[in-house]
Amino acid sequence: MKSITIQQPEKLVIEERPVPQPLPGEVRIRVSSAGICGSDIHIYRGHNPFAKYPRVIGHEFFGHIDAVGEGVEPSRIGERVVGDPVVSCGQCYPCLVGRPNVCTELQVIGVHRDGGFSEFITLPARNAHVVPHNISDNEATMVEPFTIAANICSQMNPGPLDIAMIYGAGPMGLTSIQALRGVYHVKEIIVVDRIDERLAMAKANGADRVINNTRLDLRAELERLGIRPTLIIDAACHPAILPEAIALASPAARIGIMGFSSDPCVLNQQAITSKELAIYSSRLNSNRFPMVIDWMTQKKINPEKLITHQFNYMQVVDAMEIFEKDQKQCCKVLLTF
Amino acid sequence: MKSITIQQPEKLVIEERPVPQPLPGEVRIRVSSAGICGSDIHIYRGHNPFAKYPRVIGHEFFGHIDAVGEGVEPSRIGERVVGDPVVSCGQCYPCLVGRPNVCTELQVIGVHRDGGFSEFITLPARNAHVVPHNISDNEATMVEPFTIAANICSQMNPGPLDIAMIYGAGPMGLTSIQALRGVYHVKEIIVVDRIDERLAMAKANGADRVINNTRLDLRAELERLGIRPTLIIDAACHPAILPEAIALASPAARIGIMGFSSDPCVLNQQAITSKELAIYSSRLNSNRFPMVIDWMTQKKINPEKLITHQFNYMQVVDAMEIFEKDQKQCCKVLLTF
Repeated sequence: MKSITIQQPEKLVIEERPVPQPLPGEVRIRVSSAGICGSDIHIYRGHNPFAKYPRVIGHEFFGHIDAVGEGVEPSRIGERVVGDPVVSCGQCYPCLVGRPNVCTELQVIGVHRDGGFSEFITLPARNAHVVPHNISDNEATMVEPFTIAANICSQMNPGPLDIAMIYGAGPMGLTSIQALRGVYHVKEIIVVDRIDERLAMAKANGADRVINNTRLDLRAELERLGIRPTLIIDAACHPAILPEAIALASPAARIGIMGFSSDPCVLNQQAITSKELAIYSSRLNSNRFPMVIDWMTQKKINPEKLITHQFNYMQVVDAMEIFEKDQKQCCKVLLTF
Repeated sequence: MKSITIQQPEKLVIEERPVPQPLPGEVRIRVSSAGICGSDIHIYRGHNPFAKYPRVIGHEFFGHIDAVGEGVEPSRIGERVVGDPVVSCGQCYPCLVGRPNVCTELQVIGVHRDGGFSEFITLPARNAHVVPHNISDNEATMVEPFTIAANICSQMNPGPLDIAMIYGAGPMGLTSIQALRGVYHVKEIIVVDRIDERLAMAKANGADRVINNTRLDLRAELERLGIRPTLIIDAACHPAILPEAIALASPAARIGIMGFSSDPCVLNQQAITSKELAIYSSRLNSNRFPMVIDWMTQKKINPEKLITHQFNYMQVVDAMEIFEKDQKQCCKVLLTF
């Protein structure tokens, strides 16, 4: 089979590998479609602290089960499935409290073990989630990116009184907008970014108001509008955003962060406690695949809106370059196998 | 009537004031007992940024309703009650989502308006909570301090798998220990302080293990013990604790802070997000009086254990000095009126 492998940072090859056999408790998926994520690029460029090389990348993938290992019902062969990249031990404290995404023995598909940019992949049977027929192949490939939004949003308990503000109108921001709009029905969504074309996408995905913070001072603009956000998501992941969010937040607001910067972030606890803010962080997803599949089944979200490009997997280098460089036009890029 | 008034920082007087008349919607309480809190001392010493002078201090008080304003049932006269110090507007976003403690028009009794170190006090009728007869007067005076613990603990969703670590074995730490032990039944409670006598009180109040972090390096000691706390409360309120707590926390842990320091606190977002930590802050209490009265009725907590001193209100200066200076022997000091 063909697999897209990062042999070492900056060295991507499409190599021939033996088709893997599912171990006991595993299934094998014949991959038909996969999405490119920023973290794939980080592994390619050598910026992911967890990655070991060589590595087959890819953790957003859709296909059909074509083989099962010992102990897995053969009737699963033929199922249309998406793969949850979180492989966990099931025994540690995070697993026992429903947080396998921070399992102490965490193995992320496409990071710690080989991923879905490959004609075949094996994974634990419980990680392969059946996709109902009213969800298209392309939509199904978008389940994983929406689990990122589901994971952060559901921690923050959004409601109809919330004024949400989202930093960053890339894929994580846009999926969060769709969830807050279509699932949680918040009162208002404000999106902040530095690129007008991305802000236009934010509007198309459900934002009520967009602010380009290269042209406007965000604090002054919110004051002018009389807006104090009650729910803030940092989907831009710059370490300077959290202190700003704390300053701008309404009393009783919740702030969600997803960034992995190791740069210092300087806060003031009085600013947090005097407003009784809560700060949530979110990494990958904790069993959110069924939730997102349900959202898609009920048409509460519209994943197709995010897909701007589609390539055959042989063009993966072009696809990754577009994803990386064309921030104005490109949102989600899918590879077909 | 006699009222304990801070006329300006460092100037406490017991002055004669007219007995207040309850406004429409208010009740008047004849105070029989009141507790001293660190924040009373802060107002006395001029360290509370919200206080305006002159101010009658005191926000932990118990007594009987002896008069009601227009619109309040006269049958309430005679009720044994404790007063919730949080006076809120009921209309703003925090109020509408059940967080009156960070109301945009917040008036805290004993801080923004005159408090309970007085023979009589008037307050909104809904702030006066009836105390069942199986709760003694002294216990009732302790309801408010336990609402502080209730407020932070209930945000953090403690459970039987949690290993809790509490920084600080003062009143906020000890009430939190009692709640985590008697109400939430966490698996283990570790308490960290710099004073052995306080750590002995922590043990007496339900801690399983105490660590004096002047003598032991906390990180090394936890490593030696193989412990990664899953729920951490900073009841010492020093800004250096949060970064340490983030470093020591288990994946999926929750951290609660109550400090009001405006000193810079330097964090690293990777340390938060890689473990998907949540950071809660807590100020005063959001409608937690019924919860704590229920805990006391069911004898899930033992407030008497915290009361180390009791004085007539005429000795308030002595009482405050002991509270402030005798950190080894003194925990909770009550004044009787």
